[in-house]
Amino acid sequence: MPVRLDRSSADFDQRFAAFLAAKREVSADVEAAARAIVDDVAKRGDAALLEATAKFDRLTLDAASLRVSAAEIEAANKACDAATLDALKLARDRIEIYHRRQLPQDERFTDPLGVELGWRYTAIESAGLYVPGGTAAYPSSVLMNAVPAKVAGVSRLVMVVPSPDGKLNPLVLAAASLGGVTEIYRVGGAQAVAALAHGTATIAPVAKIVGPGNAYVAAAKRLVFGKVGIDMIAGPSEVLVIADDTGNADWIAADLLAQAEHDASAQSILITDSARLAADVEKAVEAQLKTLPRAAIASASWADFGAIIMVKNLGDSIPLADAIAAEHLEIMTADPDALAAKIRNAGAVFLGPHTPEAIGDYVGGSNHVLPTARSARFSSGLSVHDFMKRTSILKCGPDQLRALGPAAMTLGQAEGLDAHSRSIGLRLNLS
Amino acid sequence: MPVRLDRSSADFDQRFAAFLAAKREVSADVEAAARAIVDDVAKRGDAALLEATAKFDRLTLDAASLRVSAAEIEAANKACDAATLDALKLARDRIEIYHRRQLPQDERFTDPLGVELGWRYTAIESAGLYVPGGTAAYPSSVLMNAVPAKVAGVSRLVMVVPSPDGKLNPLVLAAASLGGVTEIYRVGGAQAVAALAHGTATIAPVAKIVGPGNAYVAAAKRLVFGKVGIDMIAGPSEVLVIADDTGNADWIAADLLAQAEHDASAQSILITDSARLAADVEKAVEAQLKTLPRAAIASASWADFGAIIMVKNLGDSIPLADAIAAEHLEIMTADPDALAAKIRNAGAVFLGPHTPEAIGDYVGGSNHVLPTARSARFSSGLSVHDFMKRTSILKCGPDQLRALGPAAMTLGQAEGLDAHSRSIGLRLNLS
Repeated sequence: MPVRLDRSSADFDQRFAAFLAAKREVSADVEAAARAIVDDVAKRGDAALLEATAKFDRLTLDAASLRVSAAEIEAANKACDAATLDALKLARDRIEIYHRRQLPQDERFTDPLGVELGWRYTAIESAGLYVPGGTAAYPSSVLMNAVPAKVAGVSRLVMVVPSPDGKLNPLVLAAASLGGVTEIYRVGGAQAVAALAHGTATIAPVAKIVGPGNAYVAAAKRLVFGKVGIDMIAGPSEVLVIADDTGNADWIAADLLAQAEHDASAQSILITDSARLAADVEKAVEAQLKTLPRAAIASASWADFGAIIMVKNLGDSIPLADAIAAEHLEIMTADPDALAAKIRNAGAVFLGPHTPEAIGDYVGGSNHVLPTARSARFSSGLSVHDFMKRTSILKCGPDQLRALGPAAMTLGQAEGLDAHSRSIGLRLNLS
Repeated sequence: MPVRLDRSSADFDQRFAAFLAAKREVSADVEAAARAIVDDVAKRGDAALLEATAKFDRLTLDAASLRVSAAEIEAANKACDAATLDALKLARDRIEIYHRRQLPQDERFTDPLGVELGWRYTAIESAGLYVPGGTAAYPSSVLMNAVPAKVAGVSRLVMVVPSPDGKLNPLVLAAASLGGVTEIYRVGGAQAVAALAHGTATIAPVAKIVGPGNAYVAAAKRLVFGKVGIDMIAGPSEVLVIADDTGNADWIAADLLAQAEHDASAQSILITDSARLAADVEKAVEAQLKTLPRAAIASASWADFGAIIMVKNLGDSIPLADAIAAEHLEIMTADPDALAAKIRNAGAVFLGPHTPEAIGDYVGGSNHVLPTARSARFSSGLSVHDFMKRTSILKCGPDQLRALGPAAMTLGQAEGLDAHSRSIGLRLNLS
């Protein structure tokens, strides 16, 4: 049974705080194991990478067969169902159009003193994209990570994907082709992250690593952070639905279950001011679970982490939504835009009854890599910005240096940094 | 003696790679100690914070005296030299003007199918600013961290600064006032980071923590990352000067030393195509060191990590500069803008002979918190973006769902996520 909370009950604040603080993931202590693998690959390169792949993926490779060949990629493309390939192409095109609008503008301006200022954006030279193997190998995630990188202008885009027992998902290879991936290696785990960060004889290092993975991958990414850039560390997925009495219980139940089927640690929450709707949604969830292929996962998620929160009026949902800071926020109320405008913390909002989150997962165009576990309070979904960086620009002539120099010298002296002051004073004949 | 490298020598590539790989910091293994402190503050709150402050800062406080009072801040402002305060105000105003231009635009558009898409930026609700104590308590850094947060719209901005033996730098408090800091607590180290992340009875938790600190602070920031956002982990500072025969050796030497005086681990590098200039700069460095108050630090940095790299022509400096990816890049050549445009990786560029980096450190207006240790390959200086986050927006009506739904259903089925498909099919009467 999901948690039932009522905003008007006396112990609500306490129960809501406990609900927010509940951990949904057992954080396995895998750091030591990941560190040993990363250090080994950093030291011994390909040899360590090949040994780890033999051990963990039961796959014996040599340096030449680490890379997935052009012929294999072509064969994978041919093996894919045509309708699925068409859907992937539609997704790719829409993601590209959306993300092109994120390309940042350079800036250059001259201030009243004549100082030239500004900044310039450039693409990261190379990026590595981690793709999980097995059942979590989602072609849609390949597109969501690869397309923003290509739009940003990343020229070298390297994908790593484990191939347990030699198996690779053809759709993942097809998505990589569509997404503009330039190299694919059949390796995974902490060893693949280490290879991307430190480089081996076969795999040249990259500047940044993105993409989801298991606890070993996440630990390895934390370990190489600094040596290379990394994206966020993704946790289990979550959805918050805010609905009023206009909400369709069957549709809402379907959306809660679409989240719950991801993972037993996923979380689905409904906030509503309608007791009628709350009861109907709960019944609809039970009914739909009966015929769902992934019912075992979805019902565990719903029972352990699901929640229905009653509020007196929709205004009361705003601070709760901000505290939950959901990865996905669906609003199905009479005026969803007005409510959305008042909510600060959410990875993505889906407005109105005809925008199930699954549209955004695949073909909406916006990115489905979004901040989880309340991190929407301080971070954003994946974007073109994650594959670019900014260089600030400053240019003074003699007049500008004369105007600004004395204040800078004063501050340098106040901070005990005399060489800072002198570097200006020397130019102004003041020292 | 600094390293001398010559691009035309046979072993250059090997020596340059070794130079790039050389570690400048001994990374003390402080993680276990930091973890114990963070866990203690997370569990016992104020009591643990006060005990750690007594132990590390030799300062006995109670919950009431943790916070720096309005009267103390006013007294600090009065204790500051008027010229220094004026310089801080000039810096504050110029930083604000520059950073206002970084405020991102929201986006909302309707695509040809009628789908409404876009995104909305909002400020992070609260941020914590770590300021080191002792000699590294720089008022300029307070402004560089606080002003972008205020421009972004962060309403609650909390500063923590250790007060060893009860001492606080009045200029740091004055800069905090000028920068719009709303609360100041006299605590530091891993315990202050833990208090900001987990909250105590006295200090409410924040959503993101920024600012530089020692190894314990850096380790604590890594530990709380995920619970809260953090900025980059800053390493020792560095400057790369690219100059041709037009360069003024005294000015260049002064700039190299301004970097070197920060820290014995700081790094100053000159790349030039002029053997005459290289020799003159080396002589000027030695001459200027003789009268520099922080000569011990600067000469250690120059001897251990300094470098002069000779190239045949300035074009050869471009790939070297991109590999070094310097925090600060000064270009003093006949046409600095043209060369800067060809370099991809740098935290900030300073163009021409009249733009010493010290201007940018204090009063240029751009941010002096910049990526170190080659991380300019994948990251940017501190900006307004670091204090905002983006929520993506998607809205379909029935027609748009009919147009996009079937492709999303196909992908959901291909990924084995039937509840995803059903959430669409149910709305389209397809399931």
